[in-house]
Amino acid sequence: MELRVDAKEMQTVLNQLFLKYGFSENKAILLSETFTENTLAGINSHGVNRVPVFIEYIKNGIVKIDAEAKKVQTFGTIERWDGGLGPGIVNARKCTSRAIKLAKKHGMGLVALRNTNHWMRAGAYGWQAAEAGCISILFTNTKPNMPAWGGKDSRIGNNPFVVSIPRNEGHVVLDMSLSQFSFGKIHEYDLKGQKLPYVGGWDKHDQLTKDPKSILGNERGLPIGYWKGSALSMVLDMLATLLSAGSSTYKISSRVHETGVSQIFLCIYPKLFGDDQLQQQLVDEIITYTHDVAPMKPGDRTYYPGERALANTIENSKNGMTINKEIWESILAL
Amino acid sequence: MELRVDAKEMQTVLNQLFLKYGFSENKAILLSETFTENTLAGINSHGVNRVPVFIEYIKNGIVKIDAEAKKVQTFGTIERWDGGLGPGIVNARKCTSRAIKLAKKHGMGLVALRNTNHWMRAGAYGWQAAEAGCISILFTNTKPNMPAWGGKDSRIGNNPFVVSIPRNEGHVVLDMSLSQFSFGKIHEYDLKGQKLPYVGGWDKHDQLTKDPKSILGNERGLPIGYWKGSALSMVLDMLATLLSAGSSTYKISSRVHETGVSQIFLCIYPKLFGDDQLQQQLVDEIITYTHDVAPMKPGDRTYYPGERALANTIENSKNGMTINKEIWESILAL
Repeated sequence: MELRVDAKEMQTVLNQLFLKYGFSENKAILLSETFTENTLAGINSHGVNRVPVFIEYIKNGIVKIDAEAKKVQTFGTIERWDGGLGPGIVNARKCTSRAIKLAKKHGMGLVALRNTNHWMRAGAYGWQAAEAGCISILFTNTKPNMPAWGGKDSRIGNNPFVVSIPRNEGHVVLDMSLSQFSFGKIHEYDLKGQKLPYVGGWDKHDQLTKDPKSILGNERGLPIGYWKGSALSMVLDMLATLLSAGSSTYKISSRVHETGVSQIFLCIYPKLFGDDQLQQQLVDEIITYTHDVAPMKPGDRTYYPGERALANTIENSKNGMTINKEIWESILAL
Repeated sequence: MELRVDAKEMQTVLNQLFLKYGFSENKAILLSETFTENTLAGINSHGVNRVPVFIEYIKNGIVKIDAEAKKVQTFGTIERWDGGLGPGIVNARKCTSRAIKLAKKHGMGLVALRNTNHWMRAGAYGWQAAEAGCISILFTNTKPNMPAWGGKDSRIGNNPFVVSIPRNEGHVVLDMSLSQFSFGKIHEYDLKGQKLPYVGGWDKHDQLTKDPKSILGNERGLPIGYWKGSALSMVLDMLATLLSAGSSTYKISSRVHETGVSQIFLCIYPKLFGDDQLQQQLVDEIITYTHDVAPMKPGDRTYYPGERALANTIENSKNGMTINKEIWESILAL
């Protein structure tokens, strides 16, 4: 069962919930805004649907409500921060802000954050940077959920990765994990009784499969581009880990819950070159060239990265967000 | 027919060739060293095999032998350079050096280069940065050779992408294009009369296929991760184009030959944090965790990115490089 909830209502409910569980007023606002923003963008799996799990992590102390991310080291345009195992959203908002500030001063800024928690929707921070006029390249490591190419067991993370580019007529925001399908998506196909359109992971006989049931439970997702995504996952894990002096997917794998992850926030401020209008034209030129084209198959169409998130946000702001009734009721009962 | 050529011999032959075609002594050395290095690494397709085409581009004036890359704008840690349509290798070596220098001063440095030519093997500059103790993130745009996801005709490039990480026991260097298989690789499968192991592009009936012949000629390669690689290709093209104020894949598509491409050279100097030994341990930890693992299928094994290029270089330095006899003879006849 689904129902429609208005953004303002969701934000008020979540704000009260986070206050009830001990967050400061500022943090409660930041959290409720971000969970709502993610749901408005149509990413319920990293919006409203995650709230009950987030509260559970608060209750069992995995997420420390009073922790404040702190700068531990700095050199020129690069800084290391420690998240103190605080809420991932709060830490990521802070580190994105900091990278934006560094970029506006130096042209570029990088914050490497260790000891943080799940930042929910990676794209949220890409939008944040773009709103501030910054390009961003952001990524996080995760627990292992894909085999390194050639290996049997999951030993690399799907390490969500964001590139955002500010644009007057709608920011360009690529927000993707390195697995061909997220486990949330695979679960959706399973619930609908459908096969995946392409292979998405290995079954228990070590065969690549489109059958969601055979992939779920195993947690052996397929990296995008097979050996290529596998290698990309490794280098992102290395960068996040060594730059933050934090935990790698290996270290995260030794914990019962996914916590203490490492993240990178890199911002670039392109307006400093003083030709913003030309830059906008160049980006629009790429969008125009790829966008309204003859489709591969009747009914196909192309999108620029971020186009659908923006359309969802506009649509859901007007008509309310369609969410799962049971999840909403479970939140109201928390 | 294949033959073995010693690295020293190849470098001498190529050096004389480039001098003969009018390059300065310094540039002739840089070019012959890089073409040889790429061949030593086992990437003949972007080493010795490319020399005849490179000379052709010199002859018909697409590559300007006297051009010098010049800095056109700077802000803090970011610089814009113009390659003057000079040789891609020379320009890329220079811009990598410059990004390294900026990184050692500021922690990070970015050079955006426009109006340059094919840099041959992208990984060469990743190794260059790593040798200088720098992390690098490098990419180039290209002519269109893949359809944007949902579209019929090729409108995005496979935009080779590099991430390198310095490491005492062999640098980590990811060097990949965003197409599932390079056209060179597809050609190799075709010559051997083999099918691709996975779908690699579209045939003329708009079907994804493993048949190399059906893909060749069409130049509609499959992006890694389908819609994901398609989106990644777009944002890399946007970044290279807007930061350099250069040509996008769209603009490149309007030229008869692939020329005037845009490239990004981003370096980070992690030693500034003063805990190089810890960083090395953290990277090694990830390699150990993913490397000597139970294989998916008997005989499978995992590699860290760059492992095979290093092994090839060691092997080929000792025993000479195995190259195509006809190509070598055609070079000797130039």
